[in-house]
Amino acid sequence: MANNVSRRKFVQNAGLSSIALGLSPQFIKAQSNAKMDKVRIGIIGTGYRGQSHLEMLCQRKDTIIVSFADPDPRMLADAQKILKEAGRPAAVEFKNGNEDYKNLLQRHDIDAVIIATPWEWHISQALESIKNGIIPGVEVCGAIKLSDCWDIVNASEKAGIPVMCLENVCYRRDVMAVYNMVRKGLFGELLHLQGGYEHDLRGVKFNSPNSSDSASGVEFGEGKGFSEAAWRTNHSLYRNGELYPTHGLGPIAMMSDINRGNVLTRLSSVATKARGLHKYIVEHPKGGDNHPNAKLKFKLGDIVTTTLQAANGETMLLTHDTNSPRPYNLGFRVQGVQGLWQDFSSGQFNAGHIYIEGISPKAHQWENPEAYLKQHDHPLWKKYESEAVGAGHGGMDFFVVNAFVECIKRNVPFQLDVYDLATWYAVTPLSEKSIAENGQVQLIPDFTRGKWKNRKNDFAMNEDY
Amino acid sequence: MANNVSRRKFVQNAGLSSIALGLSPQFIKAQSNAKMDKVRIGIIGTGYRGQSHLEMLCQRKDTIIVSFADPDPRMLADAQKILKEAGRPAAVEFKNGNEDYKNLLQRHDIDAVIIATPWEWHISQALESIKNGIIPGVEVCGAIKLSDCWDIVNASEKAGIPVMCLENVCYRRDVMAVYNMVRKGLFGELLHLQGGYEHDLRGVKFNSPNSSDSASGVEFGEGKGFSEAAWRTNHSLYRNGELYPTHGLGPIAMMSDINRGNVLTRLSSVATKARGLHKYIVEHPKGGDNHPNAKLKFKLGDIVTTTLQAANGETMLLTHDTNSPRPYNLGFRVQGVQGLWQDFSSGQFNAGHIYIEGISPKAHQWENPEAYLKQHDHPLWKKYESEAVGAGHGGMDFFVVNAFVECIKRNVPFQLDVYDLATWYAVTPLSEKSIAENGQVQLIPDFTRGKWKNRKNDFAMNEDY
Repeated sequence: MANNVSRRKFVQNAGLSSIALGLSPQFIKAQSNAKMDKVRIGIIGTGYRGQSHLEMLCQRKDTIIVSFADPDPRMLADAQKILKEAGRPAAVEFKNGNEDYKNLLQRHDIDAVIIATPWEWHISQALESIKNGIIPGVEVCGAIKLSDCWDIVNASEKAGIPVMCLENVCYRRDVMAVYNMVRKGLFGELLHLQGGYEHDLRGVKFNSPNSSDSASGVEFGEGKGFSEAAWRTNHSLYRNGELYPTHGLGPIAMMSDINRGNVLTRLSSVATKARGLHKYIVEHPKGGDNHPNAKLKFKLGDIVTTTLQAANGETMLLTHDTNSPRPYNLGFRVQGVQGLWQDFSSGQFNAGHIYIEGISPKAHQWENPEAYLKQHDHPLWKKYESEAVGAGHGGMDFFVVNAFVECIKRNVPFQLDVYDLATWYAVTPLSEKSIAENGQVQLIPDFTRGKWKNRKNDFAMNEDY
Repeated sequence: MANNVSRRKFVQNAGLSSIALGLSPQFIKAQSNAKMDKVRIGIIGTGYRGQSHLEMLCQRKDTIIVSFADPDPRMLADAQKILKEAGRPAAVEFKNGNEDYKNLLQRHDIDAVIIATPWEWHISQALESIKNGIIPGVEVCGAIKLSDCWDIVNASEKAGIPVMCLENVCYRRDVMAVYNMVRKGLFGELLHLQGGYEHDLRGVKFNSPNSSDSASGVEFGEGKGFSEAAWRTNHSLYRNGELYPTHGLGPIAMMSDINRGNVLTRLSSVATKARGLHKYIVEHPKGGDNHPNAKLKFKLGDIVTTTLQAANGETMLLTHDTNSPRPYNLGFRVQGVQGLWQDFSSGQFNAGHIYIEGISPKAHQWENPEAYLKQHDHPLWKKYESEAVGAGHGGMDFFVVNAFVECIKRNVPFQLDVYDLATWYAVTPLSEKSIAENGQVQLIPDFTRGKWKNRKNDFAMNEDY
């Protein structure tokens, strides 16, 4: 069973202790240094992403699924079905509209929530969680506005409630092997890193009210599109920026110690013209030139390119490319003074390219990276391979949930924390501003307020999470 | 034999006629619309690059090699040897220091010169050629300062003397096949293009006074380094920018009709820290921590990333990466609304990746590009394959010399012309300024002064050059 603390507070590091001591009265139930055997969890947003997390949570003996909040009865029913099939009791439902999640957060039997809702809800729901002393694990996206990023940092610091950024690609098997290689010094001092989100989402952005089948239509928006098409597509209609930075940025930020001895300083973004979504609508059998959506002007450039600068002299490149026909590719590149790895493989070990001076047998000749990735396979992957295989997104979804639950149980800081969430989320509004200003460079706030200088990178540094 | 015109003038297009009519007296020997059977050529700079061009020129029956200018007797002797082996008469030498090329340009028996000198000489030598009514073919680099780019455009327009930019990668076989595919619409409307110069030049930047062998030392500079090390390395010492933009930019600029219906508008550059050259010096057997060059602070960031914007809504990305251990890669990417090609191959057909919606057999699955590149092999490559094979840089050097000579013979405008040279060269000083301003976006001048709107892309559109 879980501890008898109904709300918990983490002291994220020594520097926060004094802040934590100034907690307002609603947190007096919270206890520092409390460990627990089981974590009592609520899920806000039981759509496909929330359900995927739920499946991971149900595989664990250290979780109790207490409650769901979602206004969509179909998604709620699907989530309850997952519980039932796992032999777990039904969860209490909060389904009366978009704001009912606030009532879930009033419960005294929940330690933590997973927030897997449309992007525009993440920060307000996380803030409400913090206000109620409940630890939020927040799904990835970019911020709607820059002040959101400061709001979540300030709230977390003030309340002493940690926040985890649920960035799963940080746990991709090849990415984790490359962390190992970076730490062992195989690439030498890092110079330049790339990542991105290059994924043809046209069939996700358009469908029909009750079907995720892309053949079913070119509809989107509330009541017209299904699942992500109900909300995600509007971001393409109204915004032009790096809308989904974390899958590309998270891994390379952790490799280059961002917020832990290093910090992002500036970015600049450019966007191509917007063609892909309109083209998709007019060429779709259910669309055509006369379809109402053919008249819309989508604001999101088809390919958004962002360059970032870091305090320690590295540069980074992010690519957002979701409106065009193309194979999936996160396009990682990790380059140091000793060599480089380029991903072209969506996580397969035997694609991509690698070259390490002094190790690669032929001067200036690429090698297949498979042998390197196998040799430097991360201990976490070796340990949890059987649990991870079959989990979502090639197994990495297991690790993100594992880290969330294990850190809460141990009452230790998250490794992907509120500063990471704020920094990575901030890329979106800053890139929008940069594009609106024709590529003007933008300062990236230091959300750690200088603490990056002394924070240590402990990401995936142990064999448990 | 060559025509009896000793100096020639090209009317590059109708818009220039009136300018051409205002020529100053020293150009009265020039004749418009003069065709010739043979082109009488001088070479300014008979180092390795000039010698490579000379070899191409010697293979042709339509060239007369008149004269060489180079202050280095060894390089002059090597060039004369090439002539001799080709059964050609010796060239007249101008070897009395760096300025003796001016005397070469006073000769009345030269139609055109190839300028293959250290970068800092290109523009002043080209200007001197124009002043003397001699057509310059100018090797690639970036400008030393932005005003150089205007100077060459203004001089060429005023004198009616055309200038060719000798960018050989525009003629790489896979690149030319991709031009074909772009023009046939396989990629659809273009969105985003990438290129670069990713080439480990450490062994070129450092050697010893009389040897190009990288094992021979870590010396550079006049009298200390050999060949490019004598002058190129100083650019890495004193400058931080996209120092060598044209191999990456030239091909993608021609694919996207830059200066011909499209124009570059802005760029932004970022640079990593500078580590590679210092590391090379201290780790080299002939170097070490106590070597005088170990005390130098090289200014060039190891990897320079530049984003460019074009008037028609495309974005481009250039990477300059010459100080680190890595395989050679120009890293082309050509992406449109219908699909994309990514190069990873230095020109081999059977590497890299391609995906074209509606043609690629499996949705969202990369294909090896070989079959596409073979199918769309350019007519010029089919025609000249036997001449090109064995020529420098995988055959493309044949085509650049062929275009230079054929356009002069026919008295037709160059396809890689003074506007291209100015635009591509301009990237360097603009990127230096951007980096110095922490990535600030820079306006790229329209060197065509609006003529881009009506100019047509005729690059490699015929079967002769």
